[in-house]
Amino acid sequence: MTLVADPFSFDLEATDGTARAGVLRLPHGPVHTPAFMPVGTLGAVRGLHPEEVERAGAEIILGNTYHLHLRPGEAVIRELGGLHAFTTWRRPMLTDSGGFQVFSLETLRTITENGVGFVSHVDGSSRFLTPELATEIQWALRADIAMAFDHVVPGQAERSLAEEGMERSLRWLARCRDRHAALRSEIQGSDQALWPIVQGGSFRDLRRRSLEGTLALGPWTGVAIGGLSVGEPKPVMHRVLEELEPSLPRDRPRYLMGVGFPDDLVEGIARGVDLFDCVAATRNGRHGSAWTMSGRVNVRKADNRTASEPLETDCDCETCRRFSRAYLRHLFVAEEILGLRLVSLHNIRFLVRIAEQARTAIRASRFAQWRAAWSLRYHGGEDG
Amino acid sequence: MTLVADPFSFDLEATDGTARAGVLRLPHGPVHTPAFMPVGTLGAVRGLHPEEVERAGAEIILGNTYHLHLRPGEAVIRELGGLHAFTTWRRPMLTDSGGFQVFSLETLRTITENGVGFVSHVDGSSRFLTPELATEIQWALRADIAMAFDHVVPGQAERSLAEEGMERSLRWLARCRDRHAALRSEIQGSDQALWPIVQGGSFRDLRRRSLEGTLALGPWTGVAIGGLSVGEPKPVMHRVLEELEPSLPRDRPRYLMGVGFPDDLVEGIARGVDLFDCVAATRNGRHGSAWTMSGRVNVRKADNRTASEPLETDCDCETCRRFSRAYLRHLFVAEEILGLRLVSLHNIRFLVRIAEQARTAIRASRFAQWRAAWSLRYHGGEDG
Repeated sequence: MTLVADPFSFDLEATDGTARAGVLRLPHGPVHTPAFMPVGTLGAVRGLHPEEVERAGAEIILGNTYHLHLRPGEAVIRELGGLHAFTTWRRPMLTDSGGFQVFSLETLRTITENGVGFVSHVDGSSRFLTPELATEIQWALRADIAMAFDHVVPGQAERSLAEEGMERSLRWLARCRDRHAALRSEIQGSDQALWPIVQGGSFRDLRRRSLEGTLALGPWTGVAIGGLSVGEPKPVMHRVLEELEPSLPRDRPRYLMGVGFPDDLVEGIARGVDLFDCVAATRNGRHGSAWTMSGRVNVRKADNRTASEPLETDCDCETCRRFSRAYLRHLFVAEEILGLRLVSLHNIRFLVRIAEQARTAIRASRFAQWRAAWSLRYHGGEDG
Repeated sequence: MTLVADPFSFDLEATDGTARAGVLRLPHGPVHTPAFMPVGTLGAVRGLHPEEVERAGAEIILGNTYHLHLRPGEAVIRELGGLHAFTTWRRPMLTDSGGFQVFSLETLRTITENGVGFVSHVDGSSRFLTPELATEIQWALRADIAMAFDHVVPGQAERSLAEEGMERSLRWLARCRDRHAALRSEIQGSDQALWPIVQGGSFRDLRRRSLEGTLALGPWTGVAIGGLSVGEPKPVMHRVLEELEPSLPRDRPRYLMGVGFPDDLVEGIARGVDLFDCVAATRNGRHGSAWTMSGRVNVRKADNRTASEPLETDCDCETCRRFSRAYLRHLFVAEEILGLRLVSLHNIRFLVRIAEQARTAIRASRFAQWRAAWSLRYHGGEDG
């Protein structure tokens, strides 16, 4: 008998109020939490080289099953050894299940108990995604963590729809779990965790039922919270997190899906969240919108025409250490693609750094002070 | 009295037939020749970070006066300390004069003896570029080398037009020289060389008169050959180079403007050229067309769908050392901008490496053998 270390362990190192600092150990390495995951939609964090993302301090990135299923297709990625080998990203990776994307297609999809039929945005072909198929695709992609295929409802969904989505997500979770277990038993040497997603809209009792039902289907090495930051007001998101927090397993990482913006990270960490992902860093970066501690900066603005200072004076990102605002503005005005790359990189570092700073504060038992100072500075200085 | 080393020296280290190896020393560092200069049109080699271009082995890059004059304008760049400080490129830089671009505008420009009126392609505004203004703009940009403002005629131009352009280029050269000398005497501590451009189309006697007239207006620290690779057949370009070569100053670098493709470099080096520039490396790269020693590769082609090998097995570029053809193909098919960046980088390294290999062969007195082997391999293996 060989003693094998659990490839999906989580050590909670410190707490400060409900804020937590820990280390998630995955087959491709450690993730120090709280952590922000840049989104590598199509096997690349848009515009960036994997080495740049690594140097920006990201310890885990996310790949999109929906997009990778359509292009290049999981068969290609499996043949090339999985998403890590295909993209050359060396650190941990998580894939979503495609649920969020197919439910976002609205007029292009039909929901049945078996799964979701949808029309590919790439070539108009008809597709059908089931819990089993979403699990199989992710198994082929071989990320460290796969996500359950869930029924996502809009943030303002009324109770009946929220309940329907939540109940169906539980039924689908059981199917994902069974398919994943079968795949794991068939194929030796591939290690991947499957994480469930708690749904239930903005309704306290539905969220509680979802969590209870989810835990009953476990055990799980992590738990995700879905269906937030999808159109509901921020106070609703905060309330849902606060209501869930005491019931979430303390010894498991908690992943708030699709969140967020800088202040969402700070507020999420305050409410016990360990992992985040969001496309805003790169999406805003591509449009020349940079986060700084004195607020959002539109790189194109005329004030930057001859500005020799960096986007942010005390930022340690590779963009700020080297380039002036004037140069970045010029690149955007002249539509030189180096510009979107440099601002995307800054934004990613901005979020990664928030998580790093929060972690340091939590470990030093001064999270509340850090959060107050951070929020005051960030919200006090919008210079849009 | 202080003894100051010449900031624009050229040491011819070896010759092999008419092929030459040397070192051009410029205020921002040495350039080992023969050398390929990547084109940084708008203050960036399109899509690439200056560090990537440096790591690809480029020792000098080119900036476009026409484009930088329109955006962001030389006043902005001067205020920020010149093109080096603005872009953070640390090694030598050369700027063209804008002549090639304004003469390419065809229907949008009017030529007079004083200069060229043209309509900006950016905002439709009317502009007028003279030899003096082109010199002043380049002085503000502060590249190591500025180019004379010349009258460029098409490669197939008839004799009368070629003669008119050649004669006017000589008159304009005198005006550039005078303005440049005045600027140098006004402002201490800025060092920049002005290089003349030999014109004369495909006519031997016009080229000879152009060169004689040019040298009579000197001295110069380098001589450029313009008006080639602008539509004339390759054998014509080769003949013009061969006819000029014996009369070109042996102790000065020779720059063949706007050239070229891989075989143009090899053939130009064989005919005594020391410096080259061309946008093809990045332009082709953006469109997914890669140069390899077994011919041109269309990265998008279906054969590459699951190809785990790099673009070129024995290429030492950062793209080939890390990424598969399958991944590059996916990036292009999915329109992920990382793809164009990676293939542009490969193409630049491909040209830089040709110059490096030619230099090694010249210094070892085996250029003819290297050239024959290179051409056989390159032209024998088109895999388009």
